Amino acid sequence: MNSASFRVGILTGGGDCPGLNAVIRAVAKSLMLQHDAEIIGIRDGFQGLIERHVEPLEYVDVSGILTRGGTILGASNKANPFSYYRRGNADVSAEALKTYQGLGLDGLVTIGGDGTMSIAHRLAEMGMNIVGVPKTIDNDLVGTDETFGFDTAVSIATDAMDRIHTTAQSHHRVMVVETMGRYAGWIALHAGTASGADIILIPEIDYDVEEVARVCQTREDSGQRFTIIAIAEGATPVGGEMAVRERIEDSPDPLRLGGIGNMLAHDLKDRVTSAVRTTILGHVQRGGSPTAYDRNLSTTFGAMAAKMMADGQFGRMVAYQNGGFTSVPLSDVADKTRTVGLDNPLLRSALAVGTSFGQKDLSNIKS
Amino acid sequence: MNSASFRVGILTGGGDCPGLNAVIRAVAKSLMLQHDAEIIGIRDGFQGLIERHVEPLEYVDVSGILTRGGTILGASNKANPFSYYRRGNADVSAEALKTYQGLGLDGLVTIGGDGTMSIAHRLAEMGMNIVGVPKTIDNDLVGTDETFGFDTAVSIATDAMDRIHTTAQSHHRVMVVETMGRYAGWIALHAGTASGADIILIPEIDYDVEEVARVCQTREDSGQRFTIIAIAEGATPVGGEMAVRERIEDSPDPLRLGGIGNMLAHDLKDRVTSAVRTTILGHVQRGGSPTAYDRNLSTTFGAMAAKMMADGQFGRMVAYQNGGFTSVPLSDVADKTRTVGLDNPLLRSALAVGTSFGQKDLSNIKS
Amino acid sequence: MNSASFRVGILTGGGDCPGLNAVIRAVAKSLMLQHDAEIIGIRDGFQGLIERHVEPLEYVDVSGILTRGGTILGASNKANPFSYYRRGNADVSAEALKTYQGLGLDGLVTIGGDGTMSIAHRLAEMGMNIVGVPKTIDNDLVGTDETFGFDTAVSIATDAMDRIHTTAQSHHRVMVVETMGRYAGWIALHAGTASGADIILIPEIDYDVEEVARVCQTREDSGQRFTIIAIAEGATPVGGEMAVRERIEDSPDPLRLGGIGNMLAHDLKDRVTSAVRTTILGHVQRGGSPTAYDRNLSTTFGAMAAKMMADGQFGRMVAYQNGGFTSVPLSDVADKTRTVGLDNPLLRSALAVGTSFGQKDLSNIKS
Amino acid sequence: MNSASFRVGILTGGGDCPGLNAVIRAVAKSLMLQHDAEIIGIRDGFQGLIERHVEPLEYVDVSGILTRGGTILGASNKANPFSYYRRGNADVSAEALKTYQGLGLDGLVTIGGDGTMSIAHRLAEMGMNIVGVPKTIDNDLVGTDETFGFDTAVSIATDAMDRIHTTAQSHHRVMVVETMGRYAGWIALHAGTASGADIILIPEIDYDVEEVARVCQTREDSGQRFTIIAIAEGATPVGGEMAVRERIEDSPDPLRLGGIGNMLAHDLKDRVTSAVRTTILGHVQRGGSPTAYDRNLSTTFGAMAAKMMADGQFGRMVAYQNGGFTSVPLSDVADKTRTVGLDNPLLRSALAVGTSFGQKDLSNIKS
Repeated sequence: MNSASFRVGILTGGGDCPGLNAVIRAVAKSLMLQHDAEIIGIRDGFQGLIERHVEPLEYVDVSGILTRGGTILGASNKANPFSYYRRGNADVSAEALKTYQGLGLDGLVTIGGDGTMSIAHRLAEMGMNIVGVPKTIDNDLVGTDETFGFDTAVSIATDAMDRIHTTAQSHHRVMVVETMGRYAGWIALHAGTASGADIILIPEIDYDVEEVARVCQTREDSGQRFTIIAIAEGATPVGGEMAVRERIEDSPDPLRLGGIGNMLAHDLKDRVTSAVRTTILGHVQRGGSPTAYDRNLSTTFGAMAAKMMADGQFGRMVAYQNGGFTSVPLSDVADKTRTVGLDNPLLRSALAVGTSFGQKDLSNIKS
Repeated sequence: MNSASFRVGILTGGGDCPGLNAVIRAVAKSLMLQHDAEIIGIRDGFQGLIERHVEPLEYVDVSGILTRGGTILGASNKANPFSYYRRGNADVSAEALKTYQGLGLDGLVTIGGDGTMSIAHRLAEMGMNIVGVPKTIDNDLVGTDETFGFDTAVSIATDAMDRIHTTAQSHHRVMVVETMGRYAGWIALHAGTASGADIILIPEIDYDVEEVARVCQTREDSGQRFTIIAIAEGATPVGGEMAVRERIEDSPDPLRLGGIGNMLAHDLKDRVTSAVRTTILGHVQRGGSPTAYDRNLSTTFGAMAAKMMADGQFGRMVAYQNGGFTSVPLSDVADKTRTVGLDNPLLRSALAVGTSFGQKDLSNIKS
Repeated sequence: MNSASFRVGILTGGGDCPGLNAVIRAVAKSLMLQHDAEIIGIRDGFQGLIERHVEPLEYVDVSGILTRGGTILGASNKANPFSYYRRGNADVSAEALKTYQGLGLDGLVTIGGDGTMSIAHRLAEMGMNIVGVPKTIDNDLVGTDETFGFDTAVSIATDAMDRIHTTAQSHHRVMVVETMGRYAGWIALHAGTASGADIILIPEIDYDVEEVARVCQTREDSGQRFTIIAIAEGATPVGGEMAVRERIEDSPDPLRLGGIGNMLAHDLKDRVTSAVRTTILGHVQRGGSPTAYDRNLSTTFGAMAAKMMADGQFGRMVAYQNGGFTSVPLSDVADKTRTVGLDNPLLRSALAVGTSFGQKDLSNIKS
Repeated sequence: MNSASFRVGILTGGGDCPGLNAVIRAVAKSLMLQHDAEIIGIRDGFQGLIERHVEPLEYVDVSGILTRGGTILGASNKANPFSYYRRGNADVSAEALKTYQGLGLDGLVTIGGDGTMSIAHRLAEMGMNIVGVPKTIDNDLVGTDETFGFDTAVSIATDAMDRIHTTAQSHHRVMVVETMGRYAGWIALHAGTASGADIILIPEIDYDVEEVARVCQTREDSGQRFTIIAIAEGATPVGGEMAVRERIEDSPDPLRLGGIGNMLAHDLKDRVTSAVRTTILGHVQRGGSPTAYDRNLSTTFGAMAAKMMADGQFGRMVAYQNGGFTSVPLSDVADKTRTVGLDNPLLRSALAVGTSFGQKDLSNIKS
């Protein structure tokens, strides 16, 4: 490695997310062009930092990657320096710090979700100069109103539901479509509303299966012989998550289960006259080329992280709040979840145009 | 209904398939414009014929539907006049004939798969003037080299696999993607090849899980730290379908099962070092707007069916063979399945570029 | 028409824009479901109001239109009640008012751009109860940070530039791509940045053709043998719009001109060694199904307009500002244009990653 | 370069075409895996052969390129060894042969259109072992029923026309859409039919502008207030190509011209009451990721070319005829054009459903 005056590492943590490469490109190009910096790519998230698996990124390495899904750096969901799965969950953070120092890094850009930000915060307290970039298709990070990857996930889920719509309509079906969203209903809400789902079930509002069945049957009785239900993977019926587990374990027909979408379909089968079918969208929601919107959000986040790195604003995560770009302390982000509020304008609009959230009224809800 | 000299009925049978509306439009417009015919739309497949649920189709009804998924006529998967589910599986074919005669139909266009063609053949023997149009996203009808809906299904599955590819690559995963195809592997073969799947498993070639695992591991050991597996829903391991059933019933972890894709992932988990994930594409493959290719195939089939109807060529199905359009007797099509041959050029090409079909060699196979 | 207690008209003005139908649906469904209102569709913008060309919209009329491009109400670019093209540009606003009163309307929702809002403002002053919904693919309306249709236009332009990118790269071309945007560079900026355009030329920054040529040639000399230039239709070279007109009139080869994209290509031809090609994206940017993002923006705008109508908040336009939904007086919006500021975060990010705006520095610019 | 027993060169000639990389991958992987061959990539078409601009392709170089547009080898439209533009159009074929021999090539795969096949044929006569692969988005090569890139071009043009359709319909326009196709109307026919164009104008059938105007006006008078016209760039009015040239040179308003699409719009303006707009699709039709269909056609062509190379079947081009794969002598392909016949099933179907080809009857036509 050469003797550049300014040397910055970059890593991507957590699950796949469209826009990772766009952020890497923006961080690297901005620092190279404006500060003549040397960029060190760290492989497979924190694993590369622990095991010093790194490589310099040249300009050509980050050219032409804007539109590509995945991450050229590789990622690991599991590599936590404070509890490292490859060493019996030992704290190996000292090794991570040693790599950081040994490489002569002036700073480290960490792109990831709340888990990554939590680790980044602890590493920052050990003395690393860190700037975080928020990443999750679920859009459930606190501190920022938007995360890249979300618009792409919503677009993919919407396309899928558009397709399923025509089948439901022609073949008089109740179609259950399970989207991602373990802790928050953002994808189900946005894709459901965008595709005109009749019922949207999200983790923030426990659904009453009787009410769901009632809506399906009312539609059928009034001549609209189909219903589309968007359900987030983390949605739960009234009675909560325990009920789901018990139901699944006791099921006489376990093969039909295997996710909340299947469980809902199972429960509806005897309550509605139409046939019920389930589709679990799964991994397609988090791969592939990002939408134009996500590419631009990624580029702006990346360029901003580069500027913060150059300006010495460490220990913070770039963020988008109230229509503008800003930053927040890493500590504010770690290990928290941003859920859909009942006053959310899109949720309110969905209600206004007749979408059901699986409860007769919304007074008795969680969030 | 007016006193048009020529009156033709039309119905769509079986599951959803992109291009149904394009066929309806082409049949109706061709007969209206060229033969001043009156078109009678029969609702929900043979159910509408049995229960005389019909409506005249005007020119405006079939305008603007070319690009839309689904069927404006509705469809039923289950309505068989020779064993009608709404009357205790009684033979109600006489009622179907009564509707046909009561409406004064000169002919009936039936759009459907092998089940529909089988019924159409029997109705033709009772005296109806029938022209069939082949329909199945699975492309497994005999008598025709191509069916509309297939290109769309392949395109959708390919898009999904493209997305999953980036995640597999970045996150070092074995990704199992289950496509439709209960009896034949056309979708898995075409989408798998189009997206560069490393392993393609189809019903025509029983797979050996040890061989599948070996390919995954060889890739990983040689530095290609991911594998994409396309598997048709009807694929089976060596030992066959019985083995699948038994395995599922005895499973200690039934929740993880629920389809051959999940079963394969389960079997691979302990045989490869990478994490294994499954995606079941499901219903998205059969809905939504058809590709340009399918729209044109549908339009050509429809215009040709109209011409056959006008020319009095009854009891036959339009077909595409050896690069040209022709027709075949309905009796040739009924209740048969066209599978992928081992001499298929695409299968041979896939082998040549290094795709595995889950057997060390292909000498020991079914078809 | 029945004797509903609450009767609201709705019209769409100006050019086509993805999301119009989604707004119509949200306005109508919200008012029907929550206020038992009767909705009157006014045909072809203000033309229908002047000539009393109207029809009641039933629930079924606004179902299933969420995903469709265009407007079910029809539109007219030219129908201004204060200067009506079909009556020798006479002021026929009294007739518009007569229709409004004759129909017994309690209010009118006008969906359109700055021209529509300007007319709406004057009609409001005559006593009509009006709520406006902002519409322009160009995103250049003042009073709101976002307008529906813009995300779709950017997505389409980005897809096109992605395709052109591969040709430029393989065939060593300078590719000029002209986007919409007569007064503001939003589409060129967003689509250019999203597709990694090397040079982006917008109305807000006069470009220097020598500088543009220099960037192309520098790229070529350094081994990157292609350049992508995104140019808004309203961009002008240093010297301004007059220069463009003169140039075009005096051109010895007028056939090659016909838009700023062609003129730029003409000017570059002798200044760079690569071949230069132009693509004018044109009308594809404003048609077809809206993106998920635009569908949701449209639905929220529509539901909000319905609420304002019910609450009696007239003479205002719904708006999106600083990340939240609000409203502004119609008078604030009329006949103004919102341009890209030099402090725009995306423009700054584009500069940081090496995009040129056709001037060696940005100190000498208009906005 | 190592001492592999078998060494094969590969080059891509002519304009851009989706699927080029898929062919390169299939040729290279097949020969590497099945024949342990060494592959030499020749840069920028025949230019690299003349100037010995080459590089060995490793397995990793051809991995992951299946889905990418463009060509990793680069291409040149102009480099003809028998008339080389960089040497005053001299015959430098001896240098091309010298490179071929100097590299110790056992054979050369040339991917290109009729120009490339013509050159390949002459080089084969000089002693090179050549296998050709047919490439043109225009689908107008003789000897093969299909060429890769065509399905992608049709899909892109169809998407564009779908978008333009909604605007035409909402805004009561005559929309003229110019597609590629200088000598043959395949793209205009297929995309026009797939998107439901009302009028399709192709080089094979001279159009009568009065008839075109009559169809537009008849539609308008009958209440269908819009018309979509798909026109191939090579279409000509009755009176032929000379008339076009003269018209353009004499035009009082030359700025509005610049392509047959613009000329048609100009001619229609005074003949129909609706406003007329033109869109020229241009380069977007030949770039970007290929459709699943084209990827598979490319892969099959490539694997087949590899097999022919290994089997010593030189001087031939792979081809698709009558639903099967075969090959034809290069001499049969050179400098010819395959046009749309009047008996083409899709053209006949389009006629049947009411599409006009710009002549009152089709008896008085060219092909």
